[in-house]
Amino acid sequence: MEKLSRNNRVVAITKILTETPNKVVGLNKFSELLNAAKSTISEDIVIVRELLEKLEMGRIETISGAAGGIKFIPDMGSESKLEFCNELCDLLSEEGRIVPGNFVYLTDIMYNPQIISKAGVILSSYFKNMNIDYIVTVETKGIPLAYEVAKCLGIELVIIRRDNKITEGPTVTINYVSGTSGRIQQMSLAKKSMKSSSKCVFIDDFLRGGGTAQGIKDLLKEFDSELVGTGVLVDNIGIKNKRASEYITLIELEFDENTGELKVRPSEFIK
Amino acid sequence: MEKLSRNNRVVAITKILTETPNKVVGLNKFSELLNAAKSTISEDIVIVRELLEKLEMGRIETISGAAGGIKFIPDMGSESKLEFCNELCDLLSEEGRIVPGNFVYLTDIMYNPQIISKAGVILSSYFKNMNIDYIVTVETKGIPLAYEVAKCLGIELVIIRRDNKITEGPTVTINYVSGTSGRIQQMSLAKKSMKSSSKCVFIDDFLRGGGTAQGIKDLLKEFDSELVGTGVLVDNIGIKNKRASEYITLIELEFDENTGELKVRPSEFIK
Repeated sequence: MEKLSRNNRVVAITKILTETPNKVVGLNKFSELLNAAKSTISEDIVIVRELLEKLEMGRIETISGAAGGIKFIPDMGSESKLEFCNELCDLLSEEGRIVPGNFVYLTDIMYNPQIISKAGVILSSYFKNMNIDYIVTVETKGIPLAYEVAKCLGIELVIIRRDNKITEGPTVTINYVSGTSGRIQQMSLAKKSMKSSSKCVFIDDFLRGGGTAQGIKDLLKEFDSELVGTGVLVDNIGIKNKRASEYITLIELEFDENTGELKVRPSEFIK
Repeated sequence: MEKLSRNNRVVAITKILTETPNKVVGLNKFSELLNAAKSTISEDIVIVRELLEKLEMGRIETISGAAGGIKFIPDMGSESKLEFCNELCDLLSEEGRIVPGNFVYLTDIMYNPQIISKAGVILSSYFKNMNIDYIVTVETKGIPLAYEVAKCLGIELVIIRRDNKITEGPTVTINYVSGTSGRIQQMSLAKKSMKSSSKCVFIDDFLRGGGTAQGIKDLLKEFDSELVGTGVLVDNIGIKNKRASEYITLIELEFDENTGELKVRPSEFIK
């Protein structure tokens, strides 16, 4: 390839780094791809790093040593986080959100990539220094959000099933009491899906009583692994004495059963 | 904000465009954020566009008119696509992939963001000119891939459930014969989850007999909507007379029941 200008190289470096968050890219890779000396690439990286930090679009970290290189850590400025959560509150306050049984319809939000990719960046920022091995979720509604958080942290996603599937080999199954239905439910996880002694964070759409988080804690014990945190999009703060400890939420929700009114606001983590 | 250099502006433009694929961003947004004239931003965009095309990292399209602006269309060069699919074939050929019942264990691949984000870009490239309204999938294993394809196309994801959930309001349910288990199964979709007269593409991990695709076709009819294509990561070409028409696969797989050998190769779409 012919020599590229600095303008061109910084575009390529930005594209490559931001699409593989938390994965170390060696300077050699850039050097070969862009046909430039490593010293030149280092100068390019300074430009990319400074601009991303100036606009609060995440950070570039340098990892030294033989396996060294640089990696991109997604993040957003606190103003953008608050703005995003306020927009989410507007969406949640729309008419028709309450479905029979006094549940809040979240499906359209949870399956909208433009919303969930941002929510994933914000949630991941609270867990980035915890050396997490896996993001876990229980099927189904939290999967896209859990996937985005795992992507931001550069780790794998583990999805716990409600029944065991013939395509996944041997599984471990536990019973737990669901906060939504109040019924005993099952959780299954394939033996192959997780290394033992792993640190996990549970990501979900909605937190009620924390029964699911408690179930996941129990299931992870069977894999000699540990639940070290929980992150949700919406927390129903009307339900007290939650069984989930150490959790992060973006939105706090309160439902007035008498007036049928739904109150939502960005959580204390955001403000 | 103080004036930024061109080096800085192209970094910001690349970051913003590539993280919201297929969404139109007005030049005004860049102009305000980067404190530069629209004519200057237009020159910046030429640089970003040329570099992305030169390195086959996707395209930038200009949309004219009042709601105009630019948008990023993710793509990969054919060499990178083939290289990715060959790596995937190596992964699929690893020992221990076959689980009891002669199923191929795909879970770790389907839940790995580094793999699935690239597979999503490749699959989306075959559907980009079809004006798709929704990407649909059936829970669970195909969800991350379907999500990535939806994100690349700038549209929403719709996840069909195997049972109906109390948190989703009224649902439509149909029965279909699963190719995996040979049993009659259910599919449910909330009435609120899709506008009528929509064009949909079904994304999944694995194609066997196409029974699920046929079920989705039937379910979509209940929403006055249409299945216009199917995309999977792996196609079991050993199973003939598939009920899925018009499908795209990245990998072709053949399982020799006598020798227990698994043969995999990039599909004809990739080569």
